[in-house]
Amino acid sequence: MLFRSSYCRNFDNVFKTAKGSIIKSVDEKEYIDFFCGAGALNYGHNHSYIKQKLVDYILQDGIVHSLDMYTEKKAEFLDFFEKNILIPRGYDYKVQFVGPTGTNAVEAALKLARKVKKRSTIWSLIGAFHGMTLGSLALTSDEASRKGAGVSLSNVVHMPNEFTEGVDSIAYMEGILKDDHSGFEKPAAIIIETVQAEGGIWVFSKKWLQDLRALCDKYDILLIVDDIQVGCARTGTFFSFERAEIIPDIVTLSKSIGGYGIPFALTLFKKELDLWNPGEHNGTFRGHQLAMVASKASLEVFLNDHVEEMAKKRESIIQEFLEDIKKEYPNYLIRGIGCIFGIDVQDGDLSKKIVQNCFKNGLILERAGRKDSVVKIMPSLIIEEDLLKKGLTILKESIKEAERG
Amino acid sequence: MLFRSSYCRNFDNVFKTAKGSIIKSVDEKEYIDFFCGAGALNYGHNHSYIKQKLVDYILQDGIVHSLDMYTEKKAEFLDFFEKNILIPRGYDYKVQFVGPTGTNAVEAALKLARKVKKRSTIWSLIGAFHGMTLGSLALTSDEASRKGAGVSLSNVVHMPNEFTEGVDSIAYMEGILKDDHSGFEKPAAIIIETVQAEGGIWVFSKKWLQDLRALCDKYDILLIVDDIQVGCARTGTFFSFERAEIIPDIVTLSKSIGGYGIPFALTLFKKELDLWNPGEHNGTFRGHQLAMVASKASLEVFLNDHVEEMAKKRESIIQEFLEDIKKEYPNYLIRGIGCIFGIDVQDGDLSKKIVQNCFKNGLILERAGRKDSVVKIMPSLIIEEDLLKKGLTILKESIKEAERG
Amino acid sequence: MLFRSSYCRNFDNVFKTAKGSIIKSVDEKEYIDFFCGAGALNYGHNHSYIKQKLVDYILQDGIVHSLDMYTEKKAEFLDFFEKNILIPRGYDYKVQFVGPTGTNAVEAALKLARKVKKRSTIWSLIGAFHGMTLGSLALTSDEASRKGAGVSLSNVVHMPNEFTEGVDSIAYMEGILKDDHSGFEKPAAIIIETVQAEGGIWVFSKKWLQDLRALCDKYDILLIVDDIQVGCARTGTFFSFERAEIIPDIVTLSKSIGGYGIPFALTLFKKELDLWNPGEHNGTFRGHQLAMVASKASLEVFLNDHVEEMAKKRESIIQEFLEDIKKEYPNYLIRGIGCIFGIDVQDGDLSKKIVQNCFKNGLILERAGRKDSVVKIMPSLIIEEDLLKKGLTILKESIKEAERG
Amino acid sequence: MLFRSSYCRNFDNVFKTAKGSIIKSVDEKEYIDFFCGAGALNYGHNHSYIKQKLVDYILQDGIVHSLDMYTEKKAEFLDFFEKNILIPRGYDYKVQFVGPTGTNAVEAALKLARKVKKRSTIWSLIGAFHGMTLGSLALTSDEASRKGAGVSLSNVVHMPNEFTEGVDSIAYMEGILKDDHSGFEKPAAIIIETVQAEGGIWVFSKKWLQDLRALCDKYDILLIVDDIQVGCARTGTFFSFERAEIIPDIVTLSKSIGGYGIPFALTLFKKELDLWNPGEHNGTFRGHQLAMVASKASLEVFLNDHVEEMAKKRESIIQEFLEDIKKEYPNYLIRGIGCIFGIDVQDGDLSKKIVQNCFKNGLILERAGRKDSVVKIMPSLIIEEDLLKKGLTILKESIKEAERG
Repeated sequence: MLFRSSYCRNFDNVFKTAKGSIIKSVDEKEYIDFFCGAGALNYGHNHSYIKQKLVDYILQDGIVHSLDMYTEKKAEFLDFFEKNILIPRGYDYKVQFVGPTGTNAVEAALKLARKVKKRSTIWSLIGAFHGMTLGSLALTSDEASRKGAGVSLSNVVHMPNEFTEGVDSIAYMEGILKDDHSGFEKPAAIIIETVQAEGGIWVFSKKWLQDLRALCDKYDILLIVDDIQVGCARTGTFFSFERAEIIPDIVTLSKSIGGYGIPFALTLFKKELDLWNPGEHNGTFRGHQLAMVASKASLEVFLNDHVEEMAKKRESIIQEFLEDIKKEYPNYLIRGIGCIFGIDVQDGDLSKKIVQNCFKNGLILERAGRKDSVVKIMPSLIIEEDLLKKGLTILKESIKEAERG
Repeated sequence: MLFRSSYCRNFDNVFKTAKGSIIKSVDEKEYIDFFCGAGALNYGHNHSYIKQKLVDYILQDGIVHSLDMYTEKKAEFLDFFEKNILIPRGYDYKVQFVGPTGTNAVEAALKLARKVKKRSTIWSLIGAFHGMTLGSLALTSDEASRKGAGVSLSNVVHMPNEFTEGVDSIAYMEGILKDDHSGFEKPAAIIIETVQAEGGIWVFSKKWLQDLRALCDKYDILLIVDDIQVGCARTGTFFSFERAEIIPDIVTLSKSIGGYGIPFALTLFKKELDLWNPGEHNGTFRGHQLAMVASKASLEVFLNDHVEEMAKKRESIIQEFLEDIKKEYPNYLIRGIGCIFGIDVQDGDLSKKIVQNCFKNGLILERAGRKDSVVKIMPSLIIEEDLLKKGLTILKESIKEAERG
Repeated sequence: MLFRSSYCRNFDNVFKTAKGSIIKSVDEKEYIDFFCGAGALNYGHNHSYIKQKLVDYILQDGIVHSLDMYTEKKAEFLDFFEKNILIPRGYDYKVQFVGPTGTNAVEAALKLARKVKKRSTIWSLIGAFHGMTLGSLALTSDEASRKGAGVSLSNVVHMPNEFTEGVDSIAYMEGILKDDHSGFEKPAAIIIETVQAEGGIWVFSKKWLQDLRALCDKYDILLIVDDIQVGCARTGTFFSFERAEIIPDIVTLSKSIGGYGIPFALTLFKKELDLWNPGEHNGTFRGHQLAMVASKASLEVFLNDHVEEMAKKRESIIQEFLEDIKKEYPNYLIRGIGCIFGIDVQDGDLSKKIVQNCFKNGLILERAGRKDSVVKIMPSLIIEEDLLKKGLTILKESIKEAERG
Repeated sequence: MLFRSSYCRNFDNVFKTAKGSIIKSVDEKEYIDFFCGAGALNYGHNHSYIKQKLVDYILQDGIVHSLDMYTEKKAEFLDFFEKNILIPRGYDYKVQFVGPTGTNAVEAALKLARKVKKRSTIWSLIGAFHGMTLGSLALTSDEASRKGAGVSLSNVVHMPNEFTEGVDSIAYMEGILKDDHSGFEKPAAIIIETVQAEGGIWVFSKKWLQDLRALCDKYDILLIVDDIQVGCARTGTFFSFERAEIIPDIVTLSKSIGGYGIPFALTLFKKELDLWNPGEHNGTFRGHQLAMVASKASLEVFLNDHVEEMAKKRESIIQEFLEDIKKEYPNYLIRGIGCIFGIDVQDGDLSKKIVQNCFKNGLILERAGRKDSVVKIMPSLIIEEDLLKKGLTILKESIKEAERG
């Protein structure tokens, strides 16, 4: 029986157990994980604290599936999330449980934005990735994914971003919004990642993000931040937009908000936007209690272990390493922040060889970006420093091998 | 903090633990569950055998999140599913792991069908429910859900079904397909539930299903069966279409395939349809190992406990009960099969009162159908017979109360 | 230089002059015209009265092109049309000058209906033809035309009509409108031809038209009658819907409203629907004064010559002829009214041969309907009776020849 | 009876006759015409030579309406057009007769481009105007027209043009075409006006037009030039793109190609693009013979009177005048070429006052552009020089009046 896969091709082994940043295959080989479940494992694999909470809950027959009925664990999660994550940051969001995948959180955000603003168009950015179901796929920018739709993807327009050549993106967008002959409908919302991950690790500047927020305010457009991959402290702060001191109108969370690699997704929105009717965006697995138990436990880890600081420490280590790489390979482009970095080797075959060498040498990482030419470094935020360095050394060796031909 | 909900309104209590067909609230009140997580809990809550497997796997640090890398548990699941479910039924499907929600399985099915047939239109049925993300929402028929889209839902046309008044549905569809002036594009696929659940429990006849299969064959159209709610033995056989002796080209599974209320979804398709490119429909949580462990364990339960037979036994009990109800309330319409039945009381206020009375009296069930006038009976397939009868008695009393006004 | 054509293929000669129902080719051959410019020549070619008015106007340098500025001739036309056509029939329509083609009148009707009702969907009928620009093409039902779009045709749904097999069309539509799980959005309008011409000459019954009008009223839906081909007395009354005693909310006119084969089109709508902004549906040739001059003159002909009565007389002659045909060829299906009739020979090759024979024998007519199997009889409404009979005799001979093989 | 209008509001009189560049109202007032039927009257009103041909043809009962049958006059027109317009310029286009409005020519161009390239997207430019039926309306950029659609306008994306601020338009488009993560589908065609007329008289430079042609060639995209308003020598050469020495793949013509203000439209395309099926884009008034007669006569005028030279002479007179205006009102922006110029007074109220003053003083012209702030000068190409100067003097006085407040 053949099973469908995309990542499998690069990782030709069968995996069995995992702990922290080490994955073991059935043949007992150990791999350092710089892939992190595409951002779903910010606290590493099978974190002991979360694991304990999970097992305890299962053993005492805590309700596992409850749709969106009220439960003890849902109340505890919401309470904890509000008191320890939202309020300290001055946020006043409502929390919506959506189907437990990122794309579902995005689809809910789109529905809400369109409903609130009574406009059908959403602006997405060149380079964006927001999911694979039809609504979010329209936002996603890569050709291969879009072609999979089999239908015309409508009601979304892509806009240039800070790094698009030949254009001042904010001025261009404002020009369009002011022009009564632009041909563009005013959007209900602009959706962004503050760091475009799949697009090739592009970190939007604080100034650009603030200018975009100001543009949205000026023209009565909602700003949606998709923090599915780079939220949960991946960039060094819990929400990736904290560094820009902006407050989005809607935020989507998934991946690491599940804490333990368990499917979970949330859509946060400002209270005044709550125009949902009952059941208007439902789904069977919104009330997955194991995710709530794991998520709350992971937030405890986040706070108690000062994960933001840990992430920043690891950022320094990676940056130092990348400066070395840049010296050796001056044509490489280095981009990133926190614990998400990319080495753009500007050649899809070379990046492939590097990733394959890494795997052979015991390091798992993935590629991203245009023509897949970016080697993506995305370790756990709490990876042991030694292991991080060991992984980086393997990466260096693997580049060397690949460059040798 | 207000949390979004649709079902919550009817079930005004806070739940804590669950076992089999009993849910307990924080105030220690016990409720019999005839709702079954909207079909996600065919084996009841927290089944001991599955639970043990799950806890064992977690305790030994089995890898939990692995995207679509190869894993020991994935191989075991696939192997087991093929040998024990597919092969004995003579099916030759490939199994695709999709994002762990039903809507995701449907979106994948649509992409595949459109790609294979190079046509953009899909036909869905009046009364259908297939999900809430933009692609599957276009298939879904209820007005309230559709309005939530905020955009025009295109590339899908709804067709009459066996029970649509004033039309011979198969003849009508064939007429359209033959007519070069019909105005209808030939569809890539027709997607159906063999029992429309959310539409109000409508069981398509064996003959109608066979006629539809023949129509699809004659006009080179794929037949997709969405078995998300009524698969996994809900109707008395593992796949709901077994009773009609038809083989769909594509099958979507979710809900009870997760076994323990854990998010999981699969899209099955005939081998010759496999035109996917790598990564063409990806998603972070496709490799959720806990679901694979739980799912395999649940399939063991299914086989070892002869769940198909158990379901049929419970079907008889429910039918007997409903005959009584029908005698007492001859204007009620009774529809159903296996362990999914509906009492169409033909009045949305009355159905609401009944459900509220049930809850007050210790029974959880939900409504469905036009104007929500159908009381939906959907217990676990392995509910203890006494408990089933107790639940039915509560239902009867609650109807009586409601009818008294 | 090759010139694009569709009809040319059947009529392999070069035409030069025309008068009444006779067209002459450069080689001085005469043809009787039963095609009538696809309905644009109800008063025959180059009617002397209209011709005189036209030449006079040109000679005195009447303004020819005036966009939508006020002109003497526009005022005269409107005044005449209102006093002599609308008021005597009890109609209270506003008259909008649209771009001078039928499709433009339809596009204007769609915009207005969608704007008034704030709904995007329009219902069209199986078998319909309403034009070839993208908005009206979505209404048109034949596969060949639709495929030419090159994009998905959206916001239109086709409904069964009185003659669609296997369905009670009115009951089916009402079922959909009442059902909150139909999957169909409520339309802004239903657009129909009272006689489907291109679809194969299908004459809707008075009862069906009245039932449809009642359905529209009951569900707050606009009724648009496209009278482009069968208006201007083609069916025996000026507006084709007079026989059904219904009043549409919007009416589109083109073809014979131009009077002399000159491009002209109008959209009529009930006064309370006038929500147009200035310039919201403009176009360069709306103020084509020659058309207004010719149109007014043709309306004078219509009144003075009692064209309605003439049409009815010719109807009898055609009917008598067709009864004969039917006797000889009992498998033919005869349909029609007024001066538009179809002989459905149920075979596209046979109909082609018949039309080719006719042309060879000096009669021009065209085919319509499914697989082009319908021979369409559409003479001028004022054709001389002898000429009509002569044409019918040629047709009979040509059928005989074709049937001989 | 109220009649619908957009232009009427500014021109509050009733017009009766017209000759050359003078229009007369019923009260015998004379107006100089700088509006020229929005570009439909390049040879002025009722040109005597064309008039004679037209009257002769009508008087001898030349066939007026012939759909797309072969006719003597069609052959003569095509022959003349090919020999005298196309061949001398080295063009090898096929000529398609489409419904006699500009929007119809554009709709045909879109269908053909999409069919040839098997892609659904078309790129249009910010500031563009291409018509009002649904397909061409999607290309049109002004908000007011677009809102009239009542549906989402899809399969078209607007691109920045040479004058869009904050962006190097060609580089931006190329960036998108090269980027596999742009989110933009590759278009079948790019459609442009070489001078955006309705957008506010923006003359694209020779270099920009050549760069665009090169971009299209490089990426296998068709270039469509919409020459409906600025073709037929309006810019000084018969086709507006001659000055840029580029050859479009498809060209749309209407307005002045009719010669006498008579509805007419053509779509020209390179021979190798001819993938039309018979009847794939038909329409009743494609065979309007009066237009062919008038059109051929107008081409004779064009050649015999050396209209290209006449246009250039008038261009000098207008330019001289505008230099004066610019000196007096340095904040005005002057744009234009040939006999189409705009004075952008940058204030919609001011431009309105100017146009109203002009009308009062005996000069008809219109506004265009953003917020309608551009006063548009568009006289006949063969207007008497004295009359042109007189009109310009009226304009100057009217500006003065308006500026005084």
